[in-house]
This record gives sequence, C-alpha cells and structure tokens, in this order.
Amino acid sequence: MDRISQEDDRFAAWRQGPAVGDLGEFEVISRVRRRIEARRDATSATSPAAELVLGIGDDASLLRIAPGSDLVWTCDIQMEGRHFLLEWMSPYEVGARVAQVNMSDIAAMGARPFAALVSLGLPLGLRMGALETIYDGLAEALARHGAVVAGGNITKSEALFLDLTILGHVPTGMALRRSGAKAGDVVFVTGCPGRAAAALAAFRAHGVLAGELFNRFRRCYAAPMARIEAGRYLAESAVASAAIDQSDGIAADLAHICEESGVGIVLEKPLLPVDQDLKRLGAALGTDPLTWILGMSDDYELLFTVPREKVDLAFALPAAAEVAATPIGQVVKAPRKVLLGVGREDLRELTAGWDHLR
Amino acid sequence: MDRISQEDDRFAAWRQGPAVGDLGEFEVISRVRRRIEARRDATSATSPAAELVLGIGDDASLLRIAPGSDLVWTCDIQMEGRHFLLEWMSPYEVGARVAQVNMSDIAAMGARPFAALVSLGLPLGLRMGALETIYDGLAEALARHGAVVAGGNITKSEALFLDLTILGHVPTGMALRRSGAKAGDVVFVTGCPGRAAAALAAFRAHGVLAGELFNRFRRCYAAPMARIEAGRYLAESAVASAAIDQSDGIAADLAHICEESGVGIVLEKPLLPVDQDLKRLGAALGTDPLTWILGMSDDYELLFTVPREKVDLAFALPAAAEVAATPIGQVVKAPRKVLLGVGREDLRELTAGWDHLR
Repeated sequence: MDRISQEDDRFAAWRQGPAVGDLGEFEVISRVRRRIEARRDATSATSPAAELVLGIGDDASLLRIAPGSDLVWTCDIQMEGRHFLLEWMSPYEVGARVAQVNMSDIAAMGARPFAALVSLGLPLGLRMGALETIYDGLAEALARHGAVVAGGNITKSEALFLDLTILGHVPTGMALRRSGAKAGDVVFVTGCPGRAAAALAAFRAHGVLAGELFNRFRRCYAAPMARIEAGRYLAESAVASAAIDQSDGIAADLAHICEESGVGIVLEKPLLPVDQDLKRLGAALGTDPLTWILGMSDDYELLFTVPREKVDLAFALPAAAEVAATPIGQVVKAPRKVLLGVGREDLRELTAGWDHLR
Repeated sequence: MDRISQEDDRFAAWRQGPAVGDLGEFEVISRVRRRIEARRDATSATSPAAELVLGIGDDASLLRIAPGSDLVWTCDIQMEGRHFLLEWMSPYEVGARVAQVNMSDIAAMGARPFAALVSLGLPLGLRMGALETIYDGLAEALARHGAVVAGGNITKSEALFLDLTILGHVPTGMALRRSGAKAGDVVFVTGCPGRAAAALAAFRAHGVLAGELFNRFRRCYAAPMARIEAGRYLAESAVASAAIDQSDGIAADLAHICEESGVGIVLEKPLLPVDQDLKRLGAALGTDPLTWILGMSDDYELLFTVPREKVDLAFALPAAAEVAATPIGQVVKAPRKVLLGVGREDLRELTAGWDHLR
C-alpha cells in the first residue's frame, strides 16, 4: 500500500460506524472510556511527579502531584470549519492536533504535560468510528509526552469541536514566561516556521493536491509537534530568559514578548530560516516565503530569548531535545515593537497577526 | 425600583455596548482581563493552600499548591440554545450559572475550588456590555467560594458558549467519590430538588410569566448554588461514604452511585421533600411534583450516602454548611438499581435521566 492510499484509509474513518446520535450519550461515553483506559494501561504514562488517582467515572478527576513542582494549566479549542476542515484532516489528525496545540502552551512554559480533560461538542451525525479514531490520535499524542486523558464531558453541537484543558508540571520557580527578555538577548526559533501558513495557502489555491511536496506541507499543518523536550531543556537548564510558542505567527507572538518584557526585538532578515521546500512552494504560488514565516502561521515552534553568555546552551538543543533552533534577531531597549531589517538598517515594523474574532 | 424592573435591567445588558466582532480579539481580551484583574485585587481570593502565581497574559497559567492536598479537576460547558436561552437568563446569570455548575462537581468531591480557565465561543454580534456582565457573574460566583479566573481563550462561534474548567483542592485522600456506598447506609439529598425541572416546565408551558412564584422558580434554574461548604464538611469530617451532585436528576444520578459502588438504592416515597411551592406549581401545571424531584432536573443539590452510625453528623449540616439535608432512602445489596416504594413495598424501578446527545 503506498502512502497516498494509507492517507485515504485514514480519512475513511470519518464514515465508519453508527452515528453517535443513534448510540446515545451513555453508550458513546462507555466506548470512549474503554478506548482511553485500554490505552492508559498500555502506556502507563503517569510520571512519579504527578499521579492520576481517579480518572473517568466520577464527578471530577483526582490528581496528586509531588512536592517541588508548580502546576502549568492551559485550555484551547479546535472547532470544525474554524480550526480544521474534515476534508483536509483525518480523524486521527484532528485528535492529535488538538493535543499538540494544547501541549505547545505547556512547552512554552518549559513544563511537562501530565493530564488532559476533553470537552467534546458532537454533531449527532458524527460516526462512532471517527470519534474513536479522534481519541486514538489524541491519546497517542498525549502519551508520547507522558500524559493521559483524565476525563471530560460531551455536549450536542452543530459543529464538531474539541476543547482541551491540560495540566503540566515544572520544577518550582523554573517556568518560562513571556516576561524576562532583556536588551542584548538573542532571539531564537526552533524548527522551520511558516510551513503551516504555506500549506493553508496551497490548499486554498488548489484544493486537495496529491503531490508529495503538498502532502508534506499538509502534514506540517495537520500534524504539528509540541516542543515539550525543547521547552523543558530551556527551563530546567535555565537557558531562556523568555519564551512563547508560535501559534499566531512570529511577528504577532514576538510582540507579546515585547509587551510583557517591556523591550523591542529586531529580526535580521538574512537569518530567517527559508528552506528549499518553502522556496519551491513560494515560487509555485507566487508568494514570498517570508510572508509565511513572519505572518500568521501556527507551526507551534518555540520562540525564545537567550542571554548572550548562554547562547552556546541554545546551540546544544539538537542534542538535548532533537530539534535545532536558529538565532533570528536581538532584543533591544526601544522601540517596544518587532522590527525587521538587514544589519540594523532598512528597519520596518511588523504588525501582522491572527485575530480569533475576525 | 421594584424587583421586576431590576430583572429587566439585568436582561438589558444583552444589548449594551459595541459588538465584540467590531472590537476584535485583542481589545476584547484586554477589556475582559481588566474586568477580571480588578475583581481579583478586590477579593484577593487565593487561599494559602493554593496560589495563583501567574494568571492571564502568558501561554498558560501558573499555580502552586501546598503539600497535603490532592487536586480535583473538572470541566463543563454551557451553550446557548442547549443549556440556556438568552431570553430567559440575564448575562450575569449565564456567567454565574456556568461557574456554579462547574463548582458543583468540585463540591461533589468534597473539595474547595481555587481557579478556573474560561474557554469562550463568541458570536460576533454579542455585545461587549453583555460579555463584561457575564464575566461579572462568573467571577463573583467563583469569588464567593474563594476561586479566581486564571486564564482562558476565545474563539468565534455561531452560538455563545462558555466552557469552564475548574481546579479544586481537598486534603490528601479525603475526596468524596461515587464508589464507597455500602448496604445499610442512609441516602440524603440537600435542599429542595426538582425546582429546576419545575421552572423549565412552567417556562415551556407559559413563556415568561411575571408572577412572584414563577420568578422564584426561574431563579432556581438560572441561579443554582454549588454546595461547596456542604461537600467540604461531608469530606473533611468523613461523614459521607459516597457522593454525587444532582445534575441529571435524582434517579439518574443515584444510578451512578449504584454502578460505581456495586449496590442498590431504595427511596422512600413519603420522605421525598415536596414543599408547598412545588405543590402549587404542580397543581397549576397538572403535574405530579415527584416527576420533577425524581426525573431530569439540574438543581445541583448534593446526593450522598452516610453510614448509620454517622447519621447524626449529616443532621448537623445546617450548622456546618447552612443547608439542610433530608434522608430519602437506604442503600441495599441488591438489585443494583434505584427503586422507589413505600415501607419497602410497591417497589418500582426508576430509570429516567438526561441524555446530552438527545
């Protein structure tokens, strides 16, 4: 079976099994619970620092964390038609993506995720096979970083949505924050940002393309990876002075660091990581790849600032966390904006971002 | 100003201020943040056992809990058209109700709530005045039990929804569970259940009535109170052997205790608390009030079981937690069902409940 038909198989799960509305709430919950608990036994994911005492089946979940940890807590929703399209992502990917997107916020604080609650909005026509596969994707993504599904709730909804809340833990006082960047710090980004935006642009321009390049980009959007290990390294080794995950685009996300740290940031245009793939897709669509890298793109890479004397520790990331980071600019005192230039010249302000209410 | 026009004023907030879609995400978040933080300073709600280190404004919230506590964690959504109607509840009530409904699950575990994240689905036409008033209701309900809004996220949505997740804490090992009920235990319920169902029935039958009786019932539905103090007393004084909050109806919720504890429950018909108001409304609508008390009704009272030798401690609830509890039946070994009878005779099985996917 070649890769394309495997992809087709995964999409077929949208049409498998009875409609959840025909099964009723208690049967749906019972099946989901079996699916989750089988997986939890298999992965035995809870860490010594955080124990799930009681999961699904009571009024609330019960957790116990060992002394010496702070709790990091986030929530984020993924909604059909708004954050994903059924024709573009498989059920497995929808589940995995909502977990990764939420864990990315845990990563940006330098923490390790340990448990999630899932609030599900279900259209009555959704197939049970699709829902089970969504949970497979969700639970496997969590398990990869040592976290488990601890509970949740279900409601009827016009559009399918998954609203996740995740708890993580970090050694007391070591969490990364958006505040803390200081003039002179070097700005880094992990991986190769801009691919999610490029994939969306390709999809909007051409619909579902079968090409190998397009499929690779589609996966960048559909299957991001939270940078948990990178975040933990940056926090626990006290490398970063500030951090944020790139969920709205480099310009918009760095603007948050500027605001919370009371600093400015100057990006060096020649340092921005434009790889061959981005260049090829940019040429095909007639778009400057920098638009994707700097503008709205949710690749869930980490953006972080590092004091000059610790820059060597940032370059050790590939050994510590299996992802490289590129230095792309510097923190400055003023103006409190994100600027782009070449050798500190031709500076222009970057403003593009993503408004969740537009 | 008489009471009816005060109610009208509260409803008027649905129409106040600019549409959130015209303000944009960042302005909406900024205004909500100011509203919440002003309130947090005023109430200074964090307890010594649980500290909010970092709230809104970073990738995630940061919390620290003192040793000796377990965490209790829940999530629950309230959606326009599904869980509430704009013409029947004021914005303040919508905010307060989602907080109380979520805290009710914390109460059922015997815990104290300390922080909440709010996932908001906003129709672009919602007025900013309505949203601010929703947050007032939400934050005041939380503050009443010592909890604060710690963060959240916003997305565009066709229907208004608020998906809350709340963390609570309970002394290690003392949480109440659905399991633990034993044959011979006495079954109690707090307050006067059935009023929410009665209010819905009255609303469906007659639309918005101005009468004093109807308005009192409307408030029972629109403004429930989580039984936090009662739950804490039952847990911390080790009174209850099992507990659940009444969110689907007495029959359906006690069935969960039967299932998780491996027991049956026999309710005594003459003991069920039918007060004069329920009787009056029942007569007006031609309905047996027992239908409301036993069937689907989300009053968020506590249902709990107490070993015989501790029954006196349950009767001490009004002094400990300002709410009385009524003994309504007994736990039996078999059958593992919820039965209703008179003096153990004329037993019939109760099955009615609420299916969130119907």
